[in-house]
Amino acid sequence: MNVAATLAPETLAERLSATRALTLALAEPLSDADATVQPMPDASPAKWHLAHTSWFFETFLLRAVVPGYRVYDERWPFLFNSYYEGEGERLARDRRGMLSHPTLDEARAYRAHVDAALAAAMPGFDAAALELIALGIAHEQQHQELFLTDILATFAANPLEPAYAAAEHWPGSAPVGDVKWISGRTGIVEIGTNDEGFAFDCERPRHQVLLAPHAIANRFVTNGEWQAFIDDGGYRTPGHWLSDGWAWVQSEGITAPLYWGGDGTAFTLAGRQPLDPAAPVTHISHYEADAFARWAGARLPTEAEWEDMAAAHDPRGGHQLDSVGAVRPRAGGEWFGDVWCWTGSAFLPHPGFRQPEGSVGEYNGKFMSGQMVLKGASCATPRGSSRASVRNFFPPHARWQFTGVRLARDC
Amino acid sequence: MNVAATLAPETLAERLSATRALTLALAEPLSDADATVQPMPDASPAKWHLAHTSWFFETFLLRAVVPGYRVYDERWPFLFNSYYEGEGERLARDRRGMLSHPTLDEARAYRAHVDAALAAAMPGFDAAALELIALGIAHEQQHQELFLTDILATFAANPLEPAYAAAEHWPGSAPVGDVKWISGRTGIVEIGTNDEGFAFDCERPRHQVLLAPHAIANRFVTNGEWQAFIDDGGYRTPGHWLSDGWAWVQSEGITAPLYWGGDGTAFTLAGRQPLDPAAPVTHISHYEADAFARWAGARLPTEAEWEDMAAAHDPRGGHQLDSVGAVRPRAGGEWFGDVWCWTGSAFLPHPGFRQPEGSVGEYNGKFMSGQMVLKGASCATPRGSSRASVRNFFPPHARWQFTGVRLARDC
Amino acid sequence: MNVAATLAPETLAERLSATRALTLALAEPLSDADATVQPMPDASPAKWHLAHTSWFFETFLLRAVVPGYRVYDERWPFLFNSYYEGEGERLARDRRGMLSHPTLDEARAYRAHVDAALAAAMPGFDAAALELIALGIAHEQQHQELFLTDILATFAANPLEPAYAAAEHWPGSAPVGDVKWISGRTGIVEIGTNDEGFAFDCERPRHQVLLAPHAIANRFVTNGEWQAFIDDGGYRTPGHWLSDGWAWVQSEGITAPLYWGGDGTAFTLAGRQPLDPAAPVTHISHYEADAFARWAGARLPTEAEWEDMAAAHDPRGGHQLDSVGAVRPRAGGEWFGDVWCWTGSAFLPHPGFRQPEGSVGEYNGKFMSGQMVLKGASCATPRGSSRASVRNFFPPHARWQFTGVRLARDC
Amino acid sequence: MNVAATLAPETLAERLSATRALTLALAEPLSDADATVQPMPDASPAKWHLAHTSWFFETFLLRAVVPGYRVYDERWPFLFNSYYEGEGERLARDRRGMLSHPTLDEARAYRAHVDAALAAAMPGFDAAALELIALGIAHEQQHQELFLTDILATFAANPLEPAYAAAEHWPGSAPVGDVKWISGRTGIVEIGTNDEGFAFDCERPRHQVLLAPHAIANRFVTNGEWQAFIDDGGYRTPGHWLSDGWAWVQSEGITAPLYWGGDGTAFTLAGRQPLDPAAPVTHISHYEADAFARWAGARLPTEAEWEDMAAAHDPRGGHQLDSVGAVRPRAGGEWFGDVWCWTGSAFLPHPGFRQPEGSVGEYNGKFMSGQMVLKGASCATPRGSSRASVRNFFPPHARWQFTGVRLARDC
Repeated sequence: MNVAATLAPETLAERLSATRALTLALAEPLSDADATVQPMPDASPAKWHLAHTSWFFETFLLRAVVPGYRVYDERWPFLFNSYYEGEGERLARDRRGMLSHPTLDEARAYRAHVDAALAAAMPGFDAAALELIALGIAHEQQHQELFLTDILATFAANPLEPAYAAAEHWPGSAPVGDVKWISGRTGIVEIGTNDEGFAFDCERPRHQVLLAPHAIANRFVTNGEWQAFIDDGGYRTPGHWLSDGWAWVQSEGITAPLYWGGDGTAFTLAGRQPLDPAAPVTHISHYEADAFARWAGARLPTEAEWEDMAAAHDPRGGHQLDSVGAVRPRAGGEWFGDVWCWTGSAFLPHPGFRQPEGSVGEYNGKFMSGQMVLKGASCATPRGSSRASVRNFFPPHARWQFTGVRLARDC
Repeated sequence: MNVAATLAPETLAERLSATRALTLALAEPLSDADATVQPMPDASPAKWHLAHTSWFFETFLLRAVVPGYRVYDERWPFLFNSYYEGEGERLARDRRGMLSHPTLDEARAYRAHVDAALAAAMPGFDAAALELIALGIAHEQQHQELFLTDILATFAANPLEPAYAAAEHWPGSAPVGDVKWISGRTGIVEIGTNDEGFAFDCERPRHQVLLAPHAIANRFVTNGEWQAFIDDGGYRTPGHWLSDGWAWVQSEGITAPLYWGGDGTAFTLAGRQPLDPAAPVTHISHYEADAFARWAGARLPTEAEWEDMAAAHDPRGGHQLDSVGAVRPRAGGEWFGDVWCWTGSAFLPHPGFRQPEGSVGEYNGKFMSGQMVLKGASCATPRGSSRASVRNFFPPHARWQFTGVRLARDC
Repeated sequence: MNVAATLAPETLAERLSATRALTLALAEPLSDADATVQPMPDASPAKWHLAHTSWFFETFLLRAVVPGYRVYDERWPFLFNSYYEGEGERLARDRRGMLSHPTLDEARAYRAHVDAALAAAMPGFDAAALELIALGIAHEQQHQELFLTDILATFAANPLEPAYAAAEHWPGSAPVGDVKWISGRTGIVEIGTNDEGFAFDCERPRHQVLLAPHAIANRFVTNGEWQAFIDDGGYRTPGHWLSDGWAWVQSEGITAPLYWGGDGTAFTLAGRQPLDPAAPVTHISHYEADAFARWAGARLPTEAEWEDMAAAHDPRGGHQLDSVGAVRPRAGGEWFGDVWCWTGSAFLPHPGFRQPEGSVGEYNGKFMSGQMVLKGASCATPRGSSRASVRNFFPPHARWQFTGVRLARDC
Repeated sequence: MNVAATLAPETLAERLSATRALTLALAEPLSDADATVQPMPDASPAKWHLAHTSWFFETFLLRAVVPGYRVYDERWPFLFNSYYEGEGERLARDRRGMLSHPTLDEARAYRAHVDAALAAAMPGFDAAALELIALGIAHEQQHQELFLTDILATFAANPLEPAYAAAEHWPGSAPVGDVKWISGRTGIVEIGTNDEGFAFDCERPRHQVLLAPHAIANRFVTNGEWQAFIDDGGYRTPGHWLSDGWAWVQSEGITAPLYWGGDGTAFTLAGRQPLDPAAPVTHISHYEADAFARWAGARLPTEAEWEDMAAAHDPRGGHQLDSVGAVRPRAGGEWFGDVWCWTGSAFLPHPGFRQPEGSVGEYNGKFMSGQMVLKGASCATPRGSSRASVRNFFPPHARWQFTGVRLARDC
């Protein structure tokens, strides 16, 4: 990978600094206790996100390439290693909420220590190390999104329904128009990336795919449309559902998107708020997205269909994360932002995919089983981190992320 | 679908008769008690297979299209409906082993009743009904394979290790040679089917796919090669495994293929027998197949790669099921037979797939989530039921079927 | 223990023979498949009861005291050891339903072999061995009762609701009168036994207990009274219930005794039959018995209260098991028979209890935790095996036995 | 109940004030985050203990008997009701760790509010209300002990092993001598209480019990003795164990008391510390206590045996809780203090027990199932709250309390 341009030290240092600062800012509204709670095994405490992103830089850069670097605290890699088998034993994922120690301030001190060590060492980094800096930035941006969705899950688990931030962009927006179908290209196109700039391993390599005639909706499915699905018995009609999805609906007693209150409200980062009928529906599982599409006489787009069409749009546009606040999906969005788009594609390797060497090779490759691809970006995705080739992925039942659906159909 | 040729009543009637007879023959070695036991929720009692395949004809043909047909026993559809939501409530899948009544002989009487009613009605069937006969035959052939794998699981659950049939084809065979890599075609090819003859819904439609340069091994991975994987610490090295696979290995304590005894033997339909080092390894999960491939510096073939290459081979060849006996994978096989080949492809709809109307539309479509495609045929697949376009599918942890692996690689 | 009288070889031999014959007779109505099914981990297949009771004699008598005795089949102790750690590894309790082999006839042949070996050896047995014969008889009688309750559970698990035997004693009986309260003795009394005749280890030793003023109802709670409890919201009112009981009611969705159909019928050994309002309610858990008593302004009797009062009654009287048939609790019973009486006493050792040496010491002692005592006998208890000192015991949620309730109160 | 003496308002007010102050003091060393974590469903966050004990006074006194009292926060009863069905719906017990809000300071403010309201209203309280004050004090004292055991569990769940307080009373003590057996009284004695002073409902009424000849050890089993049990294979020998206990040992992989490190250390309120061989073993389950006793050729004392002998000793003596600190069991103790003594008695009602009216009647009565009685007091029991008649109770597998064992035997 040629890092000459976008990974030039000056730019990288600035991006690193800005990214590290945003994470700190996201934690600003939280108390130490808020930052300690883990509402479910899938979600991590805010404090853990702060420390884990620092552990990432410490492990893959400071320990790996900086001579004489001493680990900040010998006991902390056990706490803040997420899933890297190559980096040794670690705290069970469902026990991350046990960490009243270190405190939030101690986690901040760890960040400062790592930042200082990186700043000192970075002028001497070679291209490979700079690539790891870029990876560390992108990694931290992913955790910024998780930070927000996990704190939403945390506050949703509290019957007092605390708000993370004041309500902005409320109340709702003007009605959106009927869906317009945009025809996609047919035949051989290319997706994935070989760009010199940063991309995650799983986005590579750029490769040809074959598209059959299809069209994709010009906007997301809205809360209002979802209510119509509910009113039409959508959650009670097995014929709309995948078999696994129907089993999930029944065993979990699912009757609406996550956080919906049944009274026209939903729990949000601004606490309980009225649902905006024109805004994209969010916090739905792949099972729900698929069932809705079947009910609507449509289907989910494939990853390639979406990526080829979205590639013509600006990945820095739309409603994405710019600063700390009670972000939410809003009407009037673009191809990127608001909600991640569930696709009908399983998360499997692109043809020619090669897993990087070493522990960092565990980043994405080992998760290529049992998960579905989501494309685009959400209201919680840091602006600037989006690319058409980005491959987000979650199991089909997951719904605590800002997930939504954009319909597609054969032509 | 034009059923003029292969679905002509005479031929169909003969195939129906032969298929129904084979099922009865498969049950011949079993006692009523043998046919009642359910060793795990995934596997059904032999008796249930006998009755369910008759229920299928009764429900989708006799009740649906034969005027005045009276259900054999009003209580039995509840017992023998497998998973068709459109056909109403049914016995929980994990309670199929409670059925000491009806007896095996009563299940046989049910079969005779259905056979007679079909024979009487078939001369008047229209094309749509004849297609359903073809589907019923193919359905029963699938259950013949399940019959054998489920009875193997049943006897394996008994510490006395009963044999279903006498050992044939034992002892082992001559060593097989080193793998030879066969280059596949590159560019746009077609898979799936539009054939006038029978095919399952999920094999349709025939469509174009794009193949990158690749090669596939000329034979399956053998027991001997699998032993080398074990000896090299394959089951103890997380780096070989998908994350879900590694979690499965640890939680289930997996150290070898299912039914291996740790002493050079494996449990088979002929009871405990020595492993044949030259025979294809079987009873492995997708997780294991994937880990082995990674260990071997290779990968699994995609569905399209396999199907395009296998289409040049005779689907009636190789070691497939011809008659009752202790079938097993053997060295010296062909592209079809011995073991199903795990692919790296998720079981998702072919482009343009349409689910049939009515309850029968639940046949395959609703299972297109969380499962991986297997291609080819096994030693337990009735000869004549195989096609290159057939899409078998199981969850990645399943391994009680005759599943195996054939390596592939990029070129 | 002096075995001079009741354990005299002649008498013992006759009792042994009669007991062994009754077990065979109980199996007579069953097919091999019926005898193979295990409906839940708590219940064992009929076939297993036949073989286990023979294993008991083989293990504790033939192998232990008969020189040169060879085990019938070396593999069978693994199958038919119930819970004796001292006798080695054994088939997991929830896998007893996997045994289509040995067949029911093979289990019968095993019985014949053991019977013949016992008959040959018994003339030479010393007193200790004769005591073990008496234990083996009592053990087999316990399994005769389990045989019937387990086959009831087996047939209840089959939607076809097979009947074990023809309905006898149906329809119902004349109404029973209001409860009369019988005052018990107060002060120091004796319970337990030191008798020379047979008793289980846990009934020993006879010891003093102190009774406070109390009274016990002259009859069991009836189905009609239980219906009144249901109609009064008994299963929906947490205030009636122990905390564990209420949790059980909610998690299991309990709304009536086990096998009640909600339509005035219940499933019985004679298939589905109308409930007899005058007959003792049965198939209730300790939680239900306790809740009913609280609702009725009463309590359960203690073991000592019950035993001291029942000691004046004939343990051979009442509705107990005399022969094969669809036994059921009936109105007009006595202190023994119809249903076991749940007490308010935990199953703990009598003061001075000593666990016998060797594996046979595992018989009762190790279960003295987490279970409640039941007293008396049921319609499925072999007549002649009952004693006032017998201590039956089950966990408080168990209800597949013929369990009932007789109220008590302080005076 | 005559409350004339010990429940006189002045005394009560002082005791209330002291008790409330101690709870606050116990929380002093904790951060808001420390006070928020819930390490397992059985243990509650420190913050929850602070608020729940205030909810108790608010619910059973302020709301019930003070005209015009307004609930502090309408949403909080849902959060801080523990298990009172009569008081309505409540937060699931295993979700108490979600409460980063209210903060620890807000919980303190709630306490201050309740304290002020009580102080204002107390002069007008009648005898019944004063009894409830006494109950509230005793209730809070129970929670003081739980506060310490739960914070120990909380810090034990953190790999950093924080200390709650500085180590005091370390290092260990002089060896203790051999056990001396103290003969108990025989015949009819009285236990339980009718005292005019405070006692929990379940301690009442005083009643006669009958004691058989027995002796009890003059001291607790020590860590050193427990090590000998381990060294002798105690955890690997099924013959020592109750059946449920052995199943627990195997499924949980138990090899030592809770918090033992396997290296001569144990985790304590002062962090990891060397084990004192002469100190009473603690954090053992009833299963372990029972197994040890069997191994030692002894048994556990019954509740009545213990209570009758302990009644001659000062319940205010021994190592009990006087102030905030890293309490631990120590050698040289008395009958009360150090560790709770597991008995062989199930927690069942005393003869003549009557459950109080209203929600407060749920205090103890509904838990009289599936639990074993513990007697005495521990190092975490507030001095002054102990009585010989106190009946502590836990399920037989519980071991996060300061539980220990004192042997007994028949004479």
